[in-house]
Amino acid sequence: MSLETVLLQIDNNLNEATSRLLEFLRIRSISTDSAYKNDCERAAEWLVSDLHSLGVNNARKVKTPRHPMVMGHTDGDQPHLLFYGHYDVQPVDPVHLWHKDPFDPTIEDSEAGAVIRGRGASDDKGQLMTFIEACRAWKTVHKNFPCKITFLFEGEEESGSPSLIPFLEENKKTLKADLALICDTGLFDSRVPAITTMLRGLLGEEVTIQGPSKDLHSGSYGGVAINPIRVLSQIISKLHDDSGRITIPNFYEGVHELPAQLQTQWRNLEFNETHFLRDVDLCELAGESGRTALEMLWSRPTCEYNGIRGGYCGEGFKTVLPAKATAKISFRLVGNQDPEKIRVQFRKMVRSLLPADCTASFIEHGSGKASNFDISNPAFEAARQALTDEWDIEAVYTGCGGSIPIAGLLQGIIGTTPMLIGFGKDNDQIHSPNEKYDLQCFHKGTRSWARILAALTKI
Amino acid sequence: MSLETVLLQIDNNLNEATSRLLEFLRIRSISTDSAYKNDCERAAEWLVSDLHSLGVNNARKVKTPRHPMVMGHTDGDQPHLLFYGHYDVQPVDPVHLWHKDPFDPTIEDSEAGAVIRGRGASDDKGQLMTFIEACRAWKTVHKNFPCKITFLFEGEEESGSPSLIPFLEENKKTLKADLALICDTGLFDSRVPAITTMLRGLLGEEVTIQGPSKDLHSGSYGGVAINPIRVLSQIISKLHDDSGRITIPNFYEGVHELPAQLQTQWRNLEFNETHFLRDVDLCELAGESGRTALEMLWSRPTCEYNGIRGGYCGEGFKTVLPAKATAKISFRLVGNQDPEKIRVQFRKMVRSLLPADCTASFIEHGSGKASNFDISNPAFEAARQALTDEWDIEAVYTGCGGSIPIAGLLQGIIGTTPMLIGFGKDNDQIHSPNEKYDLQCFHKGTRSWARILAALTKI
Repeated sequence: MSLETVLLQIDNNLNEATSRLLEFLRIRSISTDSAYKNDCERAAEWLVSDLHSLGVNNARKVKTPRHPMVMGHTDGDQPHLLFYGHYDVQPVDPVHLWHKDPFDPTIEDSEAGAVIRGRGASDDKGQLMTFIEACRAWKTVHKNFPCKITFLFEGEEESGSPSLIPFLEENKKTLKADLALICDTGLFDSRVPAITTMLRGLLGEEVTIQGPSKDLHSGSYGGVAINPIRVLSQIISKLHDDSGRITIPNFYEGVHELPAQLQTQWRNLEFNETHFLRDVDLCELAGESGRTALEMLWSRPTCEYNGIRGGYCGEGFKTVLPAKATAKISFRLVGNQDPEKIRVQFRKMVRSLLPADCTASFIEHGSGKASNFDISNPAFEAARQALTDEWDIEAVYTGCGGSIPIAGLLQGIIGTTPMLIGFGKDNDQIHSPNEKYDLQCFHKGTRSWARILAALTKI
Repeated sequence: MSLETVLLQIDNNLNEATSRLLEFLRIRSISTDSAYKNDCERAAEWLVSDLHSLGVNNARKVKTPRHPMVMGHTDGDQPHLLFYGHYDVQPVDPVHLWHKDPFDPTIEDSEAGAVIRGRGASDDKGQLMTFIEACRAWKTVHKNFPCKITFLFEGEEESGSPSLIPFLEENKKTLKADLALICDTGLFDSRVPAITTMLRGLLGEEVTIQGPSKDLHSGSYGGVAINPIRVLSQIISKLHDDSGRITIPNFYEGVHELPAQLQTQWRNLEFNETHFLRDVDLCELAGESGRTALEMLWSRPTCEYNGIRGGYCGEGFKTVLPAKATAKISFRLVGNQDPEKIRVQFRKMVRSLLPADCTASFIEHGSGKASNFDISNPAFEAARQALTDEWDIEAVYTGCGGSIPIAGLLQGIIGTTPMLIGFGKDNDQIHSPNEKYDLQCFHKGTRSWARILAALTKI
């Protein structure tokens, strides 16, 4: 059976694959710091050369205003798959907290088995190499690729992807595929593989309440002049009701209850709310009453206060009555919620709550709709089954409380449905000192892609 | 008639008195800046020498850890009067906003008549000299003082009076008098003289609400973890009811309605609420419903928010869920409100409003009771009548929204009732560039003290 041969090829070549990853990890491709510009260039060149070694002869760097994209295409039949990963990494500060040089990666033994230690091991060099290694094994065994594959590797993911949108716009045609595979997420827990099918959207607002035209002395005006801190607090306290629901009119328009299939699956997940909260020294869920943590994190919208300031905030005390107070407020969005409609409704509500002599001004901090990937597309069930076979435990569809911009952009700009599959673990310490990637995740991740490629070509 | 002779002496010597004040104003006695330490010393010496020239031969500097006090006593009969003023001045920054050198004082013509322009002209050198000049005129005419007088001049009033309490404690016996006269306040408006008989007290609290043990990512915990900004806002929004009353249990214990005499007097004062609010671009009173601005400022307690901060307050946006949020809250107190009882009740109420997983911690920012001076003491009516005679308009008892620590300290430590009388105007620009004191205020202020001395010795 040909898949078995590919899997065997992966097993037998794990050492070589690991050596290639270690070589890749030695490149200091920190995208946010211009001191590492040449390192980013070298990482892109390393990928181009590795793709060439696979037989992807058209692989090349594509210049952007900052760090290059790497793009390459194989020949092959339908389906056309677009694979995305990123070769840039986070800075390594505070470097003294690393047990060793972050760019001198090694295989270390740990209680939970061997780990690959080094910056980028999990985010995202190790992850993107699982896909390349799966393709390499396939090619070695079959002399060709399972289908048409486009590789796309970004070098600016950790620094806000400034070149991504213009690049996608410009290369829309070339990148248009039947399905996009993104390897930048994690397992559901240390044993259960997952496909992320929902990403929350985000709306950012900054509101400033102005009362008197200048700061006042509380001896001269205290008790008589309106206090903007009090007004802002009153407004904030009215944005949720007692049950935790958000009170902005029409806010829940486009929010749907979970499909029964997901609801059942999520309720069956072994997610320990107590541990999840205890990690940050909390005991009780604080959101909408009657919902589980996963439901709230993955499928419910939020209104959160990210910052507040007003008056004298330094040491000691000052009897000032501030002229204004400001809050930064963000909304995580789900389903079909329309960020711009919500922005309008939010501002309208704030203004309706203003007492005499107060005005509200707003700064817009960007917005993006939630992403929902249609799991009735048979590719999802095929991939989920492949993951289940590899990990020997039922793979699950999960949501994600945060945002992964590339997913929405591929869907929005290119028109290609993305499928988010990854093999990171919660304890990988990505973005932190001592990042690692379990050797088992690298190995089984590679095998997973081989199985998924086999499954997708059969649909 | 002897008082008329004294007043004539004052009128005839106005030029000499003004020259002495200008000389005094040339001394750069900025107490908060150690670069001016010698200037403060010189100002104290100038006062000692001026008191000697009056015949107060025991006048002397009294060393403190920072700037000296000046103290002197006259012989004389009952009543024993203690007079307080301060010789130190505020810094002059921003100096470029002054029309001229702040320490080269001159008499200038203005639309409203001649003014003495220079730092300290009104606060407080010009004011304290009104009393000295009145005593000088009296002594010249009568060859002795009207009664026993103790002069006390401080050099640290503008820098927090660090030496004042120990000094009062140490000199309790010497300073014990029948009445203290403090000249550091103003007229009610530009025509109406006033005796300040109520000063609000102050209680400062800083409260920090802690939720999770560290800042969280709103993608990972948003909607599930408690948000301390929301909790703090909810608490703040519950500290007042809809009518503007403070909801802390027992908060109004010790708050009395105004005596009918004061109520009538205040309602008859020509105080333009519209102008008062318009000065800071407000239109409506924001405090307790059904009360006038003066009632609220002078006789009602407040709960004000002086500062708030939490989470990310810089430019742009950060999807952080903050671990904590902090507010600085102050209470202006009146009547017999007990600051320490209110502190306890406030903290208890905050704690009672905490949801699960939140804790509150507090920083104490000092406290002082309100001061109320008993106007049934016949000295008050005598002084008020003297002021009425001089200014040819009914003098009034007023309150003061702020705090003047010396008044409470004289009452508390020395056991002497203070009477606050001053001749400053709202437009004197004290603490600001181009400080001035109306020549008429200096002149009529001096005449006022002569009348008050005459009245008090007759009680």
